[in-house]
Amino acid sequence: MTKGTLYGLGIGPGDPDLITLKAYNILRRAPVLAYPAAEEQDSLARSIVERHLPGGQIEVPIRMPMRVERFPAQEVYDWAAEELGKHLDEGRDIACLCEGDPFFYGSFSFLFERMVEHHNVQVVPGVSSLTGCAAVLGAPLATRNDTLAVLPATLKAEELAARLHVADAAAIIKVGRHIEKVRAVLRECGLEENAHYVERATMDNQQWMPLSEMAGANAPYFSMVLMHRRGAAWA
Amino acid sequence: MTKGTLYGLGIGPGDPDLITLKAYNILRRAPVLAYPAAEEQDSLARSIVERHLPGGQIEVPIRMPMRVERFPAQEVYDWAAEELGKHLDEGRDIACLCEGDPFFYGSFSFLFERMVEHHNVQVVPGVSSLTGCAAVLGAPLATRNDTLAVLPATLKAEELAARLHVADAAAIIKVGRHIEKVRAVLRECGLEENAHYVERATMDNQQWMPLSEMAGANAPYFSMVLMHRRGAAWA
Repeated sequence: MTKGTLYGLGIGPGDPDLITLKAYNILRRAPVLAYPAAEEQDSLARSIVERHLPGGQIEVPIRMPMRVERFPAQEVYDWAAEELGKHLDEGRDIACLCEGDPFFYGSFSFLFERMVEHHNVQVVPGVSSLTGCAAVLGAPLATRNDTLAVLPATLKAEELAARLHVADAAAIIKVGRHIEKVRAVLRECGLEENAHYVERATMDNQQWMPLSEMAGANAPYFSMVLMHRRGAAWA
Repeated sequence: MTKGTLYGLGIGPGDPDLITLKAYNILRRAPVLAYPAAEEQDSLARSIVERHLPGGQIEVPIRMPMRVERFPAQEVYDWAAEELGKHLDEGRDIACLCEGDPFFYGSFSFLFERMVEHHNVQVVPGVSSLTGCAAVLGAPLATRNDTLAVLPATLKAEELAARLHVADAAAIIKVGRHIEKVRAVLRECGLEENAHYVERATMDNQQWMPLSEMAGANAPYFSMVLMHRRGAAWA
């Protein structure tokens, strides 16, 4: 029997129409649908593609404790790899939904590293939150010979500052409860006025503002701070 | 009369099916199609979406001298902004094709900065070459709390080295005739074995290899070097 293929499908940053034709077609014809989900909550990834689903697919939610600031429990991925492996062995293709792009800070990598040696795995790249946020802000992320730094907000303040000092443009991801530190570092670097905050880019409830106007001490998981030395965004 | 909208459409890295549903729908219904093209050559951007075109659109090629290592002639964009402005004033929407993502090192920014103050401009984000290359290589670009540096190969060797020293992962873009310098810098940093070369990712004639096996002294415009400290790619 021909073994099935595990497709890591980039479904884009949130707007259901930001899925690619390629991912859409695979999503429509795969007999098995897998997706990350928080414990006892609906899956955001599934809700993004819901309007595209053909119905009748076997669904495998990969439920993980979404503890703040911890990586997802690795045993959940051990379980998922075994579960999905059975479908592949029985010849069924799997569409595994990945918010944004599977290989851009995606949790798909935890599944990928467990499956790639013994199964057919293909990744379909998607629109990442990085360019999704830039589109929402209405300002180029990087142009010409800019250097661009993608920095997790979990870095220590001095490490963030050192990298911001030599970057023309930066995207600070995983902001969450680090928003105060991020703001303080940008201010010390003289770059607070060059930074914008964006949350849930391209979703119906998206928000964006100059970083100096973002008053909260906590940002949601799907948020980002973009900085460019050329100054404020156009829009 | 309602004025038209200029849509900067990210059409993805090269595979025609890596266009988003959103860009596809705008592409199909816009009465005017604009795209970059080299002098006296077919437009790569147009060829990527050719199979999706409805026919009967007014076409505005933006032809520019593709001099190596120079930014496109700014007078071409002055002309294009005026030409496209007329269509917008007469109420016609324009689909402007952008390889990859319009705001990720795209030449669309030259048009954007000329149009955004006086016209309706919307950007539809696309799959960037960054994640397109990672998908082709079959290895995550960045995971967990990695820092990721996007670096133009035009940087001086010592500036490239300084940024590579503090990056977990890096994408070196605009490789072109700088390939020897890029290889030398990565070798000096002890990172040559961690780097892969990719050209024309997701196109029919894509190629990729460990950087150490890339023998040429020149790389095409659509090429990139990806590095990750975790070591070699899986695939």
